[in-house]
Parts: sequence; structure tokens; C-alpha cells
Amino acid sequence: MEEYLFSRDIAAAHNIAQSIPATESDPQFQEVYNWFRAQPDVEDRFGQVIRQSIDEVLDGQRTGRFNLRDLEKTEKTYLGTKVEIITRTDFGLTRGRVMDFSVCGHDVDSKFTIGSNWTIPREADQHICLLIKADDQRGTFRVGLLRIRDDLLNAGENRDRKRSPSAAGRDAIKWVVPDGRLPENILLSLSVTDREVIFKNKKSGQSRTNELFRCPRVQGRIVNRNTVLTVARQDDSLKRVRDARNQLRSAGIIILGHQGQHPSIARSLDLPVPSKGSWVAARVTEIDDLHPTRKTAQIADRNYAVWGEGDTPSAAPPNY
Amino acid sequence: MEEYLFSRDIAAAHNIAQSIPATESDPQFQEVYNWFRAQPDVEDRFGQVIRQSIDEVLDGQRTGRFNLRDLEKTEKTYLGTKVEIITRTDFGLTRGRVMDFSVCGHDVDSKFTIGSNWTIPREADQHICLLIKADDQRGTFRVGLLRIRDDLLNAGENRDRKRSPSAAGRDAIKWVVPDGRLPENILLSLSVTDREVIFKNKKSGQSRTNELFRCPRVQGRIVNRNTVLTVARQDDSLKRVRDARNQLRSAGIIILGHQGQHPSIARSLDLPVPSKGSWVAARVTEIDDLHPTRKTAQIADRNYAVWGEGDTPSAAPPNY
Repeated sequence: MEEYLFSRDIAAAHNIAQSIPATESDPQFQEVYNWFRAQPDVEDRFGQVIRQSIDEVLDGQRTGRFNLRDLEKTEKTYLGTKVEIITRTDFGLTRGRVMDFSVCGHDVDSKFTIGSNWTIPREADQHICLLIKADDQRGTFRVGLLRIRDDLLNAGENRDRKRSPSAAGRDAIKWVVPDGRLPENILLSLSVTDREVIFKNKKSGQSRTNELFRCPRVQGRIVNRNTVLTVARQDDSLKRVRDARNQLRSAGIIILGHQGQHPSIARSLDLPVPSKGSWVAARVTEIDDLHPTRKTAQIADRNYAVWGEGDTPSAAPPNY
Repeated sequence: MEEYLFSRDIAAAHNIAQSIPATESDPQFQEVYNWFRAQPDVEDRFGQVIRQSIDEVLDGQRTGRFNLRDLEKTEKTYLGTKVEIITRTDFGLTRGRVMDFSVCGHDVDSKFTIGSNWTIPREADQHICLLIKADDQRGTFRVGLLRIRDDLLNAGENRDRKRSPSAAGRDAIKWVVPDGRLPENILLSLSVTDREVIFKNKKSGQSRTNELFRCPRVQGRIVNRNTVLTVARQDDSLKRVRDARNQLRSAGIIILGHQGQHPSIARSLDLPVPSKGSWVAARVTEIDDLHPTRKTAQIADRNYAVWGEGDTPSAAPPNY
């Protein structure tokens, strides 16, 4: 402790903090910033990194959780480590000498928060930090860079002696992704009532999967594998979706994946087109003639449109 | 804090700790113990729970790690949470009212350590704890139950105010699995030299996979999917193994999986038989006649035995 204060005093005496160049005249910082900005699809990739990290720690298949609020403290702490690991893998980075990453040969520390601000450990002082922040409820995230300096942190420390960027510090962040859209957490976006209907049956994962695709607020939106696993609490998402397709046929509900004619049916009906490991459901109605103003798809020699108020109820096609 | 001390004093005054029955005369404790003991394959399942937990937190596919020594502090803490989650799922348990599990309607807390002792939080006082301990280096684990009492814990507290079972406490543990064998962490069991050869090529996951199966200390032992992913640092373990099979053919190395005739070849050669998602490699030699004292397998109309010192080098069969 005394040693620490001593070196802080020396630093103050030599005015080291002031000698660190501002962001614009910090060539190492610029190099790191340019490197991230030059990464192809940087926004999508950080979005996927964060989505994957959140989903792995929620561990929906085993726990049925989809809300970060339900994580334990140890899991919230670990979430930052998972974001660091997946960022390193996705961007092909190695470890730095003393910090989490090496970017263009410069050490960069990784800091993640789902709260309002980051907590910066003492060791990161003078280092470049990759600051990542996510709000799963709003489906937003930001990624920025900041060279940590004493005058950019609040004075107060938490009990681990960590401090947070001050208003001036937050203003000094250079944003790699200023306003990212997080891949949707569909269960989190539903109303309490919709979720109660989906999760009502405690015993049957298949029944819960059926209710997921039957839900009008889920139809027309991409449902990914993790959502099915979280609802079904079972290994085999493919089989659960296949069985839901059969069991919802009489209710006029189709579930499209990425295989065969499914993507073209999705496009014809103006639905989002699922990629591998994701699906889109819709309630359809059989219509006799090609209707000039409605999007229709021909499936097994019949014409279908997305069901609307006033349409006759009809079964979904037997094969598609 | 004062309130806390106050209730401790009251407890002391009423001698509550002494009024808790000893293990043998604690019917709730006995019920929980009997429940775990009655679970089919309890040792195998706890072994798998621990193996899976360790492997997920090591995250070998992304990090290349296979040694718990390389985990960060947040990851070590989280490992206990992962063991708790997978135990709950595997044994179909629900959460307790205030503790981690409900077993026969009784609250049970989950505590895991890879060290020498467990740390017990204040909240677990008077509760039944499921104590799990693993040593990945030795490939051993233990699972036991203990009703936490003040006189079974050491006096000293860590900075989170947690205490550890004393010698008397550890003696009082009733073991569900007294001496379990953990599924092998094959990379951890190899010599530094063997590992250097396997991990030498930093760029090619395929080359590392080839070296894994070429290693004489790996041959004849079950290699699981996680080991291949940790070595290859890629998604598709099946493809890496398939390509290794082709690339190691001229070196006389076969890699057997669970499909087709592979299990029967493994049995004929006295090798362990791989289950789905695992493999066994062996160096073989073609032998002309059936040798009376050697285990042989007929593959593609030729006879092969496991290669031994003095045998002629030969290629592995072209198809199997």
C-alpha cells in the first residue's frame, strides 16, 4: 500500500499523467482503433460475440433462463471473461504481455459491462481498454476504446480498488461501434402473459416448443436454436421443431427453416429468411385464387398467404 | 453486523448448534443421502458432471486450455456454479427455498472445490451441503454430504467471511461417492515433450490433430470430442478426425470411431471401444498369417495387428 502511494506520488511529481498524449496524438491508440475499424463486419461480429457470451452464461438449455437479471453474481462476473474469450477467438487475437489482448503489438485490456459504466482495475492504468457495453433488454451495444488515465476516472474506488471512467473519461471514448444492434433475445422481448403461456407446461419440452411457435408475437420473427433449447430444455432442437411442425399443422401454422424450398417460401410470404439453425413460423391460410394485393406462396400445389383477421382458418400444407 | 452478532449470541445462549442431531440421527440428512445413493450410476454421472463442467469452463476449443491451473480467478469461482447447474440438470433437481437444490423437499447447498477444502458461506449454516471435490491431475473426485454446524468449521474466516470444514467436519462427511474416477483428461496426462510435439504447429489445427493421434502415448486410449476440439481449435471435430485418418494412413495409424465395423475392429485388436463422439487410434502392421498369440483384425481382406517393436512398418488399410 505504501509502496503504491509512493509510486503514485512520483508519477504526480513527474506529471506522467499529463505527458500521456491525448487520443488524437496517441499513435498506438490510433493503430488499435484503425485495426478494429478495418475488421470486416465489425458491428455484426461484436453483436454475435456478445449474444453468444450472454447465451452461454445464461445456459438456457439447462436452466431455462433468458434474462441476465437471473444470473448469480459469480456468473455476472464470469460474463466479462466469456466476452473476452470469444472476442479473442472471433478476431483471432493473442494475449498481450500483461493485458488481455495484443492488437498490432499493443496491449489492450477487455472490459465488459451490462450496467451503466465499466470498472477499471489499477493494472489497466496507462493501458488501452476495449470497453464493451450491452443492454439485452433494449437489444443495443457499444464498443469503444479508451487509454486509461488517472484524470479520466472517478475518484471513488469500489472495494476491489477499481474505479470507473468519469464523465470526461466517457466523453474521451473513441467508439468502434457507437450504436450496435444486438441479435434479438426473443423470449426477453415477449410480454409476461405470452411467456406464461409458453412456459406453462412444466413437464413437456415439446409442448413448450409448440406454444413458442403458436405465439402470434413470435410468428414472423427469426427464432434461433438457443431460444428453442431454452424453451425445450432438451438437446435436440431439430427434433423439437420437426415435431412442432407436425403438431401445429392443423392450427394452420408453418415453421420454415433454411432447408429445401423453405427460404423461397419465406421470401414469397415476405417473412424473414432463416439461416442454418434458425426458424420462422407463420399462421397461413389457403387462398383459392392468386390475390393481387397479397403475398402468396405455392406449397404442394396450393396457394397460401399469411393469415389475417377475417381469413378462413385452414390447415398448414401437409408437406413442405 | 450487530444484528448478526446478536442472533449468533441468541443461538449460543439457546445452544442451538448442540441441539442439531448428529448425522446418524438426522432423518432429513439420511433421506437426502439415501436419495443420492439410490440414483442409478451415481458415480459415473457425477464423474460426467464434473468432467463436463471443467471442460466447458476451460473452453478448450476457443482457448486451447486443458489445465485448470490456467483458469483466471473469475473462472475458478464460476466453475462451482457450472457444477451446480449441471448437477441440477443431470439429477433433475429443482432449486431449494433458500439453497441451491431441493432434494426430497429438503434444501441442499452445492459446494465445489479443486483445492483441499471447501469454503462455506454463513447462509449455509445449519443446512445440508453437497460437497464435491475434484483433482483433474489425478483423475479423482469425491462427493459427500454434511450438515453444516458451527462446531464442524474452522474458526478462521476468509475475507468473504466464509469458513472451511475442520478436521472433525471432514470426518463427519458422509460420502455418496467416496473414491470416484474422473473421465480422463488425456492432454493433462501427457508429458511436456509429447504436448510440445502436438501443439508445435501454431497455424494448422489439422496438423495438431494429426500429431495427437500419431502420439504413441495417445494411441490405445479413448480420445473424446473435447480433446480434438482443444487441439484443433476448430468447430468440426469429425472432419479433423476424418482428415487425420487419411493423412496418417501411410504411417500405419488407424483411427476408430463408433460407426460401422469400427467397434468390432477395436474389440478384435483389444483396444477400448469408442462410444459416439470419441475415438481410439493405433499403429497397426499387416501380418500375412493368423498369428496364434496376437490379436488380429481382418480389415478389407487383410490381417492387421497392433504394431510392436520389430514389426515391419506397413500402411494402414485403405478403407475401414
